[in-house]
Amino acid sequence: MVCIVKTYEKPVLSNPVLIEGLPGIGFVANISALHLIQELKATLFAEVRSSSFQDFAVTAEKGQTSFPINELYYYKGRDSHERDLIILYGNTQALTTFGQYELCDRILDVVESLGCNDIVTLGGLRVDRKVDVPGLYCAVSDSAMVDEVLGRGAKIIGGQIFGLAGLLVGLGKLRGMKGLCLLAETPGYYPDAKAARAVLDLVCRLLNLRIDLERLDVAAKATRDILESFGVGSTYSVGERKRRESRHWLI
Amino acid sequence: MVCIVKTYEKPVLSNPVLIEGLPGIGFVANISALHLIQELKATLFAEVRSSSFQDFAVTAEKGQTSFPINELYYYKGRDSHERDLIILYGNTQALTTFGQYELCDRILDVVESLGCNDIVTLGGLRVDRKVDVPGLYCAVSDSAMVDEVLGRGAKIIGGQIFGLAGLLVGLGKLRGMKGLCLLAETPGYYPDAKAARAVLDLVCRLLNLRIDLERLDVAAKATRDILESFGVGSTYSVGERKRRESRHWLI
Amino acid sequence: MVCIVKTYEKPVLSNPVLIEGLPGIGFVANISALHLIQELKATLFAEVRSSSFQDFAVTAEKGQTSFPINELYYYKGRDSHERDLIILYGNTQALTTFGQYELCDRILDVVESLGCNDIVTLGGLRVDRKVDVPGLYCAVSDSAMVDEVLGRGAKIIGGQIFGLAGLLVGLGKLRGMKGLCLLAETPGYYPDAKAARAVLDLVCRLLNLRIDLERLDVAAKATRDILESFGVGSTYSVGERKRRESRHWLI
Amino acid sequence: MVCIVKTYEKPVLSNPVLIEGLPGIGFVANISALHLIQELKATLFAEVRSSSFQDFAVTAEKGQTSFPINELYYYKGRDSHERDLIILYGNTQALTTFGQYELCDRILDVVESLGCNDIVTLGGLRVDRKVDVPGLYCAVSDSAMVDEVLGRGAKIIGGQIFGLAGLLVGLGKLRGMKGLCLLAETPGYYPDAKAARAVLDLVCRLLNLRIDLERLDVAAKATRDILESFGVGSTYSVGERKRRESRHWLI
Repeated sequence: MVCIVKTYEKPVLSNPVLIEGLPGIGFVANISALHLIQELKATLFAEVRSSSFQDFAVTAEKGQTSFPINELYYYKGRDSHERDLIILYGNTQALTTFGQYELCDRILDVVESLGCNDIVTLGGLRVDRKVDVPGLYCAVSDSAMVDEVLGRGAKIIGGQIFGLAGLLVGLGKLRGMKGLCLLAETPGYYPDAKAARAVLDLVCRLLNLRIDLERLDVAAKATRDILESFGVGSTYSVGERKRRESRHWLI
Repeated sequence: MVCIVKTYEKPVLSNPVLIEGLPGIGFVANISALHLIQELKATLFAEVRSSSFQDFAVTAEKGQTSFPINELYYYKGRDSHERDLIILYGNTQALTTFGQYELCDRILDVVESLGCNDIVTLGGLRVDRKVDVPGLYCAVSDSAMVDEVLGRGAKIIGGQIFGLAGLLVGLGKLRGMKGLCLLAETPGYYPDAKAARAVLDLVCRLLNLRIDLERLDVAAKATRDILESFGVGSTYSVGERKRRESRHWLI
Repeated sequence: MVCIVKTYEKPVLSNPVLIEGLPGIGFVANISALHLIQELKATLFAEVRSSSFQDFAVTAEKGQTSFPINELYYYKGRDSHERDLIILYGNTQALTTFGQYELCDRILDVVESLGCNDIVTLGGLRVDRKVDVPGLYCAVSDSAMVDEVLGRGAKIIGGQIFGLAGLLVGLGKLRGMKGLCLLAETPGYYPDAKAARAVLDLVCRLLNLRIDLERLDVAAKATRDILESFGVGSTYSVGERKRRESRHWLI
Repeated sequence: MVCIVKTYEKPVLSNPVLIEGLPGIGFVANISALHLIQELKATLFAEVRSSSFQDFAVTAEKGQTSFPINELYYYKGRDSHERDLIILYGNTQALTTFGQYELCDRILDVVESLGCNDIVTLGGLRVDRKVDVPGLYCAVSDSAMVDEVLGRGAKIIGGQIFGLAGLLVGLGKLRGMKGLCLLAETPGYYPDAKAARAVLDLVCRLLNLRIDLERLDVAAKATRDILESFGVGSTYSVGERKRRESRHWLI
């Protein structure tokens, strides 16, 4: 199988921007993407399975099963001010470096074929303290984008950006795409709605999206439920770092 | 080599159901499949080897050798009430996630080509206590199947279903196949004939199979013998969980 | 690269038998193969490199370098009594299960194309005691061969046969080849000339080879030198088992 | 993706020699290659990405991002005395044995297509003491080269040469290329300008390159900065050996 994209629809989009929202530190991207999908009533158009995902099924309510999967949604801006979006959502990243590169390439194949030139990846930046107002940090693959983001209150990140959030920016650059990574401070060991709100708020301003952020707690709650069904609920707080090292991305 | 199917015969079957019976917790599936094969005199029609299986040979009685392998058997129902079966049996699962996905896909290729639309995977659900009457649990990929199974005394599983038992249901769903996973409670650290009897009894009722379950102990004994020849005999009880984590599926 | 065979010559052989002599427990196979090659003046006709071998160079005398490699030699019997041979020699096995399967398949491709139907793999059987007269053990993929070997003093092995010694017999069987594995008792933590002599003596009788076994110590010494250049010299005795588990086959 | 070469230019070179300069012990090769590139104003003509590199992005100054990458530069000798060069530079080696072989093969494909027949790989030879005047050591794949190098003060290495420094010599030999590996003594736990100077000085004499070695400290400083941005700065001195074993090549 390796990494397979099953496409349900090929949407016609105008200069869409890819927003990455896979599980990671504080589930900041995951919550944000879920909220965008729900608020914008985005449309699922493709699913990605990979043999680098976990090899198990997860039981959902009423005995049904869910599986490690990534999904692509699209949203067409309601007017000329709103950007068209492609949203990458899922319950896992790949378990190996090799799998991550492959997953990233398949997703870039899809979004490139839809005319996407801009990538925004989201995430959490772990801080070992309580976070009242999460600071925002950014990194870019195109220096022209820095000023705009810095002008809106984000600072420059120092360090590595692991996972698809980093890879999409890096491999996208090879295809001539402009990449922006936005991280919000988070303790990181629970689905952090506050951090998600911070990044989403900036994303909305950058992309002229009009989204109600009041119900972010709903997405955070849903993310926590998925997390628990995947069996990492209570033990999750043992440490993202350890999880990271053992590459158990799956929420 | 990767993963190769060697086909001896292409049986003509009528709406067959795939029954998965690979080694796993309590060897519930393994014993059940072996018993089905023996009682129904099912016919071996394909063998699967994979470079994700262990790289060793195992000596059998009289100096002969056996090897890590999966096998596919078929059974044609004796009358219009009995379902045609494809039985997946073997002495191992793949050692890597990647190998598991690939193995699963190869097997689904074969059974799909034979008209199979239904998958029943079996297994044990570990409980840390003595089990007198093993409870039965289920998960499905098609909600229409839940009621029928629940009506026969099974409960809904919460948690993950590892290995081919989970993957076949998940990847089968992508091909439009209906999947049912049945697990019986078991302490899990020995080939558990009692748990196998519990799942087999329900499988027989669901598929209208008439099978004598008296001799299940024979299949459990044979499974234990294979287990010992593979060198995991006495050390096996150290813990299935550890085995699971190190992906030494081989019985 | 994966696994590549570079062929220097395609010998014309009559019903040749493949003799496996890669590094393993006690280097029994390795010493034996080297001795056969030297005594019979066997001809190198193919080299095998694999990206599953170690990624390093090893310095040899006078600043030259050697590399992880497998080699195939042939020997044409001097008269109608002596069997033609293909000898597999090398300084490593593959580091991963996947690599082992692939290596095995490439080698079987070559020897099958040369008309080979018989495989003899050699090895050591670890015993935790001093060995005066090494006992001989066997396993076969073809029951017809058992009696002949047992009649010459070998016993039947119980347990697993790891590595190419087991895989060649197993995967060869899939191609209709007859396989015999011969192991000699050895403490296992040094290149064991005594054990090599025991298996070679039986191999010579089985295949009607006339070989002087007096100089086996020379091959054992050469094997020990290679071993030391590969940096596992003095630490090697820490335990073959640990080496085995971490798959550092390289001598 | 696996391993992809993106070529910007196909230079016309006369009998060029490949100089390897990837991260390794003491960053001897890395500093040397960077210095050569800067002093000779060598031209970047190809980039190599691999899914066996780390899956992250690294933030650089001003919020921009850099990524795990290898680069190929060329330099055309200023007169008939100076050799044309191809310089392999990068911030990482592959994380797996498999990836290393593949990376090596892709690079050899490129340089072979440019008429390269000679390979010089550089590196550090760890010594557990302060090094005042680094001793030089060599290994070759072609015995004709030994005398020339020994005559210039280098000694013969005993032991393994890990990574691309060893592999390029080994796999290059399979393609008929002559390989030389030069190592300088170094404590190894920091970017060692002194060791780099020692190997570069010999390389320049061997290849008739006229290069000012005064500014080597600049390249060492730049290497240290990259190192720190990759997050291994202060913890790096914990031990190259451990790093080596866990295959975190990335500087």
